[in-house]
Amino acid sequence: MKRITIYDVAKEADVSLATVSRVINGSEVVREDTRVKVQEAIEKLGYKPNAIAQGLALQKTTTIALIVPEASYFYTGQIINGLIDVAKIYKYNLMLHTTTEGITEMNDIIENIIKSRVDGVVIFNDKLNKEELNQLTKYQVPIVVIGNKMSDETVGSVYVDYSSLVYDYAMDCIAKGKKRLALIEDRKNPAMIKQLRDGLSRAYKENGMEFDGYIEIPKEYRSSYLFLKEYVKDGVPYDVVITYRDSQAMAVMNTVKEAGMNIPDDVELVCILDSKYNSMARPQISGFKIPDYDLGAVAMRLLTKMLTDENDVPDKEIELSYIFTPRKSTK
Amino acid sequence: MKRITIYDVAKEADVSLATVSRVINGSEVVREDTRVKVQEAIEKLGYKPNAIAQGLALQKTTTIALIVPEASYFYTGQIINGLIDVAKIYKYNLMLHTTTEGITEMNDIIENIIKSRVDGVVIFNDKLNKEELNQLTKYQVPIVVIGNKMSDETVGSVYVDYSSLVYDYAMDCIAKGKKRLALIEDRKNPAMIKQLRDGLSRAYKENGMEFDGYIEIPKEYRSSYLFLKEYVKDGVPYDVVITYRDSQAMAVMNTVKEAGMNIPDDVELVCILDSKYNSMARPQISGFKIPDYDLGAVAMRLLTKMLTDENDVPDKEIELSYIFTPRKSTK
Repeated sequence: MKRITIYDVAKEADVSLATVSRVINGSEVVREDTRVKVQEAIEKLGYKPNAIAQGLALQKTTTIALIVPEASYFYTGQIINGLIDVAKIYKYNLMLHTTTEGITEMNDIIENIIKSRVDGVVIFNDKLNKEELNQLTKYQVPIVVIGNKMSDETVGSVYVDYSSLVYDYAMDCIAKGKKRLALIEDRKNPAMIKQLRDGLSRAYKENGMEFDGYIEIPKEYRSSYLFLKEYVKDGVPYDVVITYRDSQAMAVMNTVKEAGMNIPDDVELVCILDSKYNSMARPQISGFKIPDYDLGAVAMRLLTKMLTDENDVPDKEIELSYIFTPRKSTK
Repeated sequence: MKRITIYDVAKEADVSLATVSRVINGSEVVREDTRVKVQEAIEKLGYKPNAIAQGLALQKTTTIALIVPEASYFYTGQIINGLIDVAKIYKYNLMLHTTTEGITEMNDIIENIIKSRVDGVVIFNDKLNKEELNQLTKYQVPIVVIGNKMSDETVGSVYVDYSSLVYDYAMDCIAKGKKRLALIEDRKNPAMIKQLRDGLSRAYKENGMEFDGYIEIPKEYRSSYLFLKEYVKDGVPYDVVITYRDSQAMAVMNTVKEAGMNIPDDVELVCILDSKYNSMARPQISGFKIPDYDLGAVAMRLLTKMLTDENDVPDKEIELSYIFTPRKSTK
């Protein structure tokens, strides 16, 4: 599987390597007959110019590193689709990296990425805090974070304010007399659950109450379903149960039904992160449509701006909105 | 955002660019005191050696291109996880590309990929046929296809034989007296549906019958659910209904229940591509566990072999097996 190299082209055209390189990179200093000779050699041999070498010659690579948590979720998939569509428009390549752990492993990954001289980095991570952000800025490479609101000279972000989302929803519930709200713990997304608890606490405080509806899943239970099966046996002392993911909403629905209760008559159910599966459940589960595709697309667009305008991007913290989709699990 | 370059290091250490390059690439010809001087300059300035330039110097990049259909599905996510885990072990970078259309767009993508001189390519595509494979082999770069069985000098594949899967299942059903099987069309996966129809036809033929249970979704219906809502109204004249994806299985379940029938007593239901959502449905839906993570991991392992052993990989067509997971939708 010997590959045709630039050396073969130079030999075939009987010119120097530098000349072949200049032709490939569109330099003006090559004579027309030489250029034709080189082009003919390239075509004859089927040589593919090496984009990496071209990038070096032009002092520019065209690669963006994308760091996402393990790519298992429907949600991440749509974010990647959004990123890629915009990356294609601007002719950037995407180098994919995934993380299973927290910031420690991420620092190693970023270290490697910086070494490969990418133009910029997009990180999908809603767990980064201010201190960890400071670690990122030292790299002097534009970084866009999808998840949390944060920015700095070289860092921008695109996010949905989940704390405000659930705050607004809770204020509305309380105004309608539904004062007993529950939030189910999600072990896989502690940072997100913290945001949601903050929003709920704020809404309760403004109404002169304290939020006490956080339902922890004890460590000994392997799944939310197994815990909830026990928990709902003697009734659910809440007006509305809120879950983060669809699978938890389905666990609530299945266990409540199996205990002989009715949704939404005995208890209402809301899922924060909406998915197509919420519509397939019976009753259909109400949820918040998060613009996941847009999160990716806007993040990549922001990065292209940071790459070209450098210090002149007016807003590097972009908040995207959400839409509440009421279905049959709420009244 | 000025970045430290190799030129800054050369200036700081008061040596030539070539010397800095030799130190970075571990060349033996540099004197020890010069090497120390360069290393000190690198550390003082915080210079990150450019992996691209290193790759050129060593005549080797360490990048694999991964081409997947739009990354929306849970299934694709697990394949990517498998690929990445093995790629990490062998220290390959993954360049991500997605396709929305068929082979035409794919050829453009491959053309670009080859130009960037990757070491190899992994394509997740179960629609490639023999003719399209021939187009791939001309690139002289090792390619592993996830999806269909195929191989050639530079091409290998990792796949699940869906035709045999459904053949085995149908043979078993027929032996048990369940002779009326239905397969629901899936507009998004025509190549897969063709494989399944072939397997069913083969099983029927061997039993002296002809398979006539293919249910097409007429173009005027926006979704399987809307069509099935009409279709099942007067009963379902089949013993077992087979769907490819979980969302179609749920459409069958919802419409059958809404028409007042019972699963599995009035009709059984099987989903080929199992997912966690099948366990959340009530009754839980039986399905085939496909080793999606393994498809990715084995594909990357095969590619690493093809990259190092070149023409000496004994088996370039690797079939992975599946496990039938009976739940409550079958008897």
